[in-house]
Amino acid sequence: MNRNIETFIGCDNEYDEAKMVIFGAPFDSTTSFRPGTRFASKAMRSESFGIETYSIYQNKDLEDMSIFDGGDLELPFGNPQKALDQIEEFASEIINDDKVPCMIGGEHLVTLGSVRAVAKKYPDLHIIHFDAHADLRDSYLGETLSHASVMHRVWDIVGDNKIFQFGIRSGDREEIYWGKDHVYTSKFNFTGLEEVIEKLKGKPVYFTIDLDVLDPSVFPGTGTPEAGGVTFMQLLGAILKVSKLNIVGMDVNELSPIYDQSGSSTALACKVLRELLLSTYKA
Amino acid sequence: MNRNIETFIGCDNEYDEAKMVIFGAPFDSTTSFRPGTRFASKAMRSESFGIETYSIYQNKDLEDMSIFDGGDLELPFGNPQKALDQIEEFASEIINDDKVPCMIGGEHLVTLGSVRAVAKKYPDLHIIHFDAHADLRDSYLGETLSHASVMHRVWDIVGDNKIFQFGIRSGDREEIYWGKDHVYTSKFNFTGLEEVIEKLKGKPVYFTIDLDVLDPSVFPGTGTPEAGGVTFMQLLGAILKVSKLNIVGMDVNELSPIYDQSGSSTALACKVLRELLLSTYKA
Amino acid sequence: MNRNIETFIGCDNEYDEAKMVIFGAPFDSTTSFRPGTRFASKAMRSESFGIETYSIYQNKDLEDMSIFDGGDLELPFGNPQKALDQIEEFASEIINDDKVPCMIGGEHLVTLGSVRAVAKKYPDLHIIHFDAHADLRDSYLGETLSHASVMHRVWDIVGDNKIFQFGIRSGDREEIYWGKDHVYTSKFNFTGLEEVIEKLKGKPVYFTIDLDVLDPSVFPGTGTPEAGGVTFMQLLGAILKVSKLNIVGMDVNELSPIYDQSGSSTALACKVLRELLLSTYKA
Amino acid sequence: MNRNIETFIGCDNEYDEAKMVIFGAPFDSTTSFRPGTRFASKAMRSESFGIETYSIYQNKDLEDMSIFDGGDLELPFGNPQKALDQIEEFASEIINDDKVPCMIGGEHLVTLGSVRAVAKKYPDLHIIHFDAHADLRDSYLGETLSHASVMHRVWDIVGDNKIFQFGIRSGDREEIYWGKDHVYTSKFNFTGLEEVIEKLKGKPVYFTIDLDVLDPSVFPGTGTPEAGGVTFMQLLGAILKVSKLNIVGMDVNELSPIYDQSGSSTALACKVLRELLLSTYKA
Amino acid sequence: MNRNIETFIGCDNEYDEAKMVIFGAPFDSTTSFRPGTRFASKAMRSESFGIETYSIYQNKDLEDMSIFDGGDLELPFGNPQKALDQIEEFASEIINDDKVPCMIGGEHLVTLGSVRAVAKKYPDLHIIHFDAHADLRDSYLGETLSHASVMHRVWDIVGDNKIFQFGIRSGDREEIYWGKDHVYTSKFNFTGLEEVIEKLKGKPVYFTIDLDVLDPSVFPGTGTPEAGGVTFMQLLGAILKVSKLNIVGMDVNELSPIYDQSGSSTALACKVLRELLLSTYKA
Amino acid sequence: MNRNIETFIGCDNEYDEAKMVIFGAPFDSTTSFRPGTRFASKAMRSESFGIETYSIYQNKDLEDMSIFDGGDLELPFGNPQKALDQIEEFASEIINDDKVPCMIGGEHLVTLGSVRAVAKKYPDLHIIHFDAHADLRDSYLGETLSHASVMHRVWDIVGDNKIFQFGIRSGDREEIYWGKDHVYTSKFNFTGLEEVIEKLKGKPVYFTIDLDVLDPSVFPGTGTPEAGGVTFMQLLGAILKVSKLNIVGMDVNELSPIYDQSGSSTALACKVLRELLLSTYKA
Repeated sequence: MNRNIETFIGCDNEYDEAKMVIFGAPFDSTTSFRPGTRFASKAMRSESFGIETYSIYQNKDLEDMSIFDGGDLELPFGNPQKALDQIEEFASEIINDDKVPCMIGGEHLVTLGSVRAVAKKYPDLHIIHFDAHADLRDSYLGETLSHASVMHRVWDIVGDNKIFQFGIRSGDREEIYWGKDHVYTSKFNFTGLEEVIEKLKGKPVYFTIDLDVLDPSVFPGTGTPEAGGVTFMQLLGAILKVSKLNIVGMDVNELSPIYDQSGSSTALACKVLRELLLSTYKA
Repeated sequence: MNRNIETFIGCDNEYDEAKMVIFGAPFDSTTSFRPGTRFASKAMRSESFGIETYSIYQNKDLEDMSIFDGGDLELPFGNPQKALDQIEEFASEIINDDKVPCMIGGEHLVTLGSVRAVAKKYPDLHIIHFDAHADLRDSYLGETLSHASVMHRVWDIVGDNKIFQFGIRSGDREEIYWGKDHVYTSKFNFTGLEEVIEKLKGKPVYFTIDLDVLDPSVFPGTGTPEAGGVTFMQLLGAILKVSKLNIVGMDVNELSPIYDQSGSSTALACKVLRELLLSTYKA
Repeated sequence: MNRNIETFIGCDNEYDEAKMVIFGAPFDSTTSFRPGTRFASKAMRSESFGIETYSIYQNKDLEDMSIFDGGDLELPFGNPQKALDQIEEFASEIINDDKVPCMIGGEHLVTLGSVRAVAKKYPDLHIIHFDAHADLRDSYLGETLSHASVMHRVWDIVGDNKIFQFGIRSGDREEIYWGKDHVYTSKFNFTGLEEVIEKLKGKPVYFTIDLDVLDPSVFPGTGTPEAGGVTFMQLLGAILKVSKLNIVGMDVNELSPIYDQSGSSTALACKVLRELLLSTYKA
Repeated sequence: MNRNIETFIGCDNEYDEAKMVIFGAPFDSTTSFRPGTRFASKAMRSESFGIETYSIYQNKDLEDMSIFDGGDLELPFGNPQKALDQIEEFASEIINDDKVPCMIGGEHLVTLGSVRAVAKKYPDLHIIHFDAHADLRDSYLGETLSHASVMHRVWDIVGDNKIFQFGIRSGDREEIYWGKDHVYTSKFNFTGLEEVIEKLKGKPVYFTIDLDVLDPSVFPGTGTPEAGGVTFMQLLGAILKVSKLNIVGMDVNELSPIYDQSGSSTALACKVLRELLLSTYKA
Repeated sequence: MNRNIETFIGCDNEYDEAKMVIFGAPFDSTTSFRPGTRFASKAMRSESFGIETYSIYQNKDLEDMSIFDGGDLELPFGNPQKALDQIEEFASEIINDDKVPCMIGGEHLVTLGSVRAVAKKYPDLHIIHFDAHADLRDSYLGETLSHASVMHRVWDIVGDNKIFQFGIRSGDREEIYWGKDHVYTSKFNFTGLEEVIEKLKGKPVYFTIDLDVLDPSVFPGTGTPEAGGVTFMQLLGAILKVSKLNIVGMDVNELSPIYDQSGSSTALACKVLRELLLSTYKA
Repeated sequence: MNRNIETFIGCDNEYDEAKMVIFGAPFDSTTSFRPGTRFASKAMRSESFGIETYSIYQNKDLEDMSIFDGGDLELPFGNPQKALDQIEEFASEIINDDKVPCMIGGEHLVTLGSVRAVAKKYPDLHIIHFDAHADLRDSYLGETLSHASVMHRVWDIVGDNKIFQFGIRSGDREEIYWGKDHVYTSKFNFTGLEEVIEKLKGKPVYFTIDLDVLDPSVFPGTGTPEAGGVTFMQLLGAILKVSKLNIVGMDVNELSPIYDQSGSSTALACKVLRELLLSTYKA
């Protein structure tokens, strides 16, 4: 008999054979409004058994792929710097083994740890960023390591014209004005995505999806629901487009199961992750 | 003084005068993920008093029609075969009295009991099936009587080219491939519905609506929310089209009130049932 | 040190300098189905700190405007007439100081108090009314002062051809037929809004938004969710159009926080109010 | 086939044969804090099928008794006087037919309607009142007909030394001081109940149970949870004692199902009603 | 790197070394009222990390013991007989390896599978049964395999005077009367437990705890909350007494996480399981 | 007209006249299990209007006292050290003005900031600590500033034999053993409290109440519900005893409104705070 193994559905391969590695980064200490994203990765593993491994959309099946689920990191609540160090270290190990890391947040700040790891290997890294919020502040409540400033911190690493944001519909005036000079921003939806994809062909790309890019009607289970977002089918279409690029790292974040009383947000997050894995997987 | 009578709004006619008969089939023992549809019919009766009997969409009023609400069957939990027998028997009585049965599930398996009854009278029965899930497996967890295999069991009765599915966006690979040879499937939405209706003119049709065909944003109150579904207005449009056919039996199922914390799914289910009754009613 | 002041975000100006005045009317005693709108104004103040003062949609910021938040009226539950008197008195004071009142309901009946105040100053008052329900009954359960008859009571004041309804998708047969002779009604959405705006240019307009005009998918947090409504972006577009008129009073009502478990309805209501204030504000 | 009849479990006898009559008074318009008791009677009927008709405590069975469930009154929200008139009229009919009325509230104000009816027949009426709150204010928010003043209104009818309160642990200073001169009050629990029962032997007694006399741990499903209450076993013991008196009318009120997410408060209310019926029933 | 292992806290030993084996039996198909116990074992594993491995009550630590968590059985919903067979087979394997099985339900019917396995090895098996409900019916809704008849089925195996029930406060008249002749029943609490323990010294005992023996105030998260139960400290005291016996099998069941919105029932169930393991463990 | 002022009920005096000062410390970044205590102070202010200013228990009224509510500090999430500095600074200002600070947490770590401020003025400070958890770890997940180590940090300041804990029923083995040498611990309840009070007469005492000392049945609304706690009446009795000492600072913490669906935990926390203020207030 074996001890109880719990992975995201269809991702129960051994590490050595895997091309992709899922792991959870259950951290939400800088969340300023409603915390709870720390529970996302556990909830997604558990609820993933409510969906199929097979996708009608792509006619592909997770059972044909080799993906490893490394479980959750044990991160120190209240210490963002140390948490980011742990994430960077773990992601670096995956990258050094020539596998693609796919992190499940957690608040959006965790992306910084993973981007640090990926950028070390790929200095010309580009970022595709789906989100309702610009996350471009230089600091928030006096802190530079905050969910609200994560893309500014990523910009510290990758520099101008490397970050491409889509779906943005919230920010304070200052960050929005700052962003005009430093990042590409498509407001409200995915307008312009095809041109961006054309431009990034062949380049290493980190793909970060803040699930609150979705309209709260389809994704209420998040700490900062922001009306006016995209539909699931729009998001799926955009993911399938981005997946044609050379994705060297990715993450899905900001699911907060405690605000998902019906379970539909968690189910949707599982489906997004499945489609993301199926579409970006390279055998 | 009379004992407390509780019916779906506007459906308080006597049996003998009624042209249509509503009844509940509160059964969900084979539900493999999240149970709770057993509470749907009670919740719908209770919450129906939050909607009107009059429909602005159709300019019709339930008060002008003669519909009987027979309450809920008392079904044995844990014994699907016996439950289906009871449903079949009850539906048969209605059909033999030349009335149209309209069952409120329950999990989708209950459809099988009602279809058995209807098919006895109408050997050339066709099925119009709205659903997110194909429900075409031959068995599930070793059981042939399962919500996940109900349409396969219906196919056992009606045979090839009699089942027309719409809205399907989930299934395992095997059932989807099997379905290609045996049933008509329109993925994701109602594309092709008009052609199907043209084809089925004059034929006896059983109309089964799994409410999870709706997007979870409009219908979160269900056990297996599946992103990427249709809107209420799309569903309403499709129902109005189907209602032009010779509907000899119908059901609405898979509402799970416990996952409907806001009450909006139950209210929507009531509205769907009202529109369904108003549109298919023949004086 | 100052006592704890709590206002809607960005509306913390002094009364004397303010051009607009927000106040809450926490009353829901005539709500016939599911009460709870009495908690809307408190919830909106509290949750407004989850949104920004700046709007990307309009490139405007509440911090550039002078708006006063007068808190909530203390209304007597169970006595609609006295509650309406208090609302009328408070709104009159605002209007007499040449400020624009913006009331947060409460059930829709509270609109009557505010309209009474505004109509005294503007005899040629016109009403723009966004709602799922016609609210045109002469009485409901024997009461003439009811949420279900509020627009009939408003009609008592303003008369024929002064009320313009949009988004209506529910009503009983009698009120719908009555409405055809007395008010302008656009069913389901905002069709015809531009013509109406053209027509009302220069006239004094009271703008009342029953938030259940939105689809329950985007706004589940209300007592009578009515499927088939508009999206947030449609509502926002319509508000921006209406804001070109001479708005002399307005209200936003029918948020019921208790049915908003995820918090997304309250967040949306805050965003609607922000956009409404930003668009109608005249310096 | 019969239309769907729904009664409290075991109370499905015909009116003419019944010794007791249950009815619901779904009214909560004067509730000043959190409304929702209007849903209590419906919820209790529905959930009563989760308990047995037989009581181990009393070794009695509802199936051996003849009790009629008359359903719910249709009361006008927002008009307390008219609602009380309807309750009084209905209760009077029951009393005139020599049956004992057992009302399910609603907010506590509904007790006034029933007491009015009973006091007409029994001028020497005494009141046993279990509650967390004294409900003795002369008026509340300017209203004399309020849940917070209901026992003062009852005192207007029955006069000094006729009201016996138990479990009281909340009130404003004024009403508590007033009460010292006019009613018997036992604070916190049932101390003194036996002496009171001894004293009231043979006299006609109206028994009103505000379920918030229970500690919120056992009964969270109420609008104004007040810590420090009694346990279920204490309440049951007290009911069994009171049942030895000549109970000529009774009610159970203040269950608010919307705050009873686990369902345990509704189940408890059903059990209290069962024990109350079983213990006071006279064949 | 290892695949993600998830066990109940402190129970992550290998099978071969373990003295005790935990496993989940996620089955609730015969639940007649509110289903959901199928989610108990998963929820308990996940939430167990909110408690400590160390018990102040016993001054013992799970880290000093060798316990294996075998995960959940995959049981066929809707087929009680097959589900019981699988449970019996799994429990038999554990017993044959000289380990003590500790099953997490699931509805109470699952106990039958485990008792069958244990009784094969220990023909003189005695049962200690903590529960609110007698569970002694011969059949329920026509089914002999039902949660409501599980102790009658256990009696079929062990016979008269072998079953000792404590905490019973609900049942129908017939089963209570039947029980008087066949089982030992202590109503409401643990009165008589010490005498029973004295009597069963040295005999093989199966210990089944239906957590609804607890008062719903401390354990609301169950399908059939029954007021008037024991406190946690009473239950803990009783467990510590029973643990002195020769426990050859045990289970904890009827947690239904979906009715445990605050999480306190799940946390309590984890604590009960911890104390049960710590107290019955034999090195 | 005045801007909307929101204080805890009856605590709306001006700062200069006040003898006591309430303030909120909405911080929960180190919470390792379920966050949410950041919302406690806001929820308590809002819900406090559901209780009276008058206490039947003490026959005292907040309206006779002069207490100031300074609102909430704006603390940087994710930076415990800076948050503690802000709390210390704010509390110091209150103490230097010869007023008694009464902080509303937040997670228990916030106590450290307030104790630092108080200990500067009162070097002989003693601590009375009500809690379910010992909170005595030296560090947790590698962090020394953690809710789980707060009393160890307080010990760093006050030293041996100055901390008196009551109600403790959870901890890891190491901290419990460490505590035996350094602090006074009464397990499970308030045994020994009278002796401690006798001993501390005349000494300056900081009184910290972690509300999870209460049993989860009466206080489910907390992140780490720990079965086996005290009742409200036991807590009230203990508070009344402690209030005889020279309380120079105090706090109430660990309410997490998001887990308090019924609202009863928030109502109880308000009542505890009222009784605490009424009993410790010195005119």
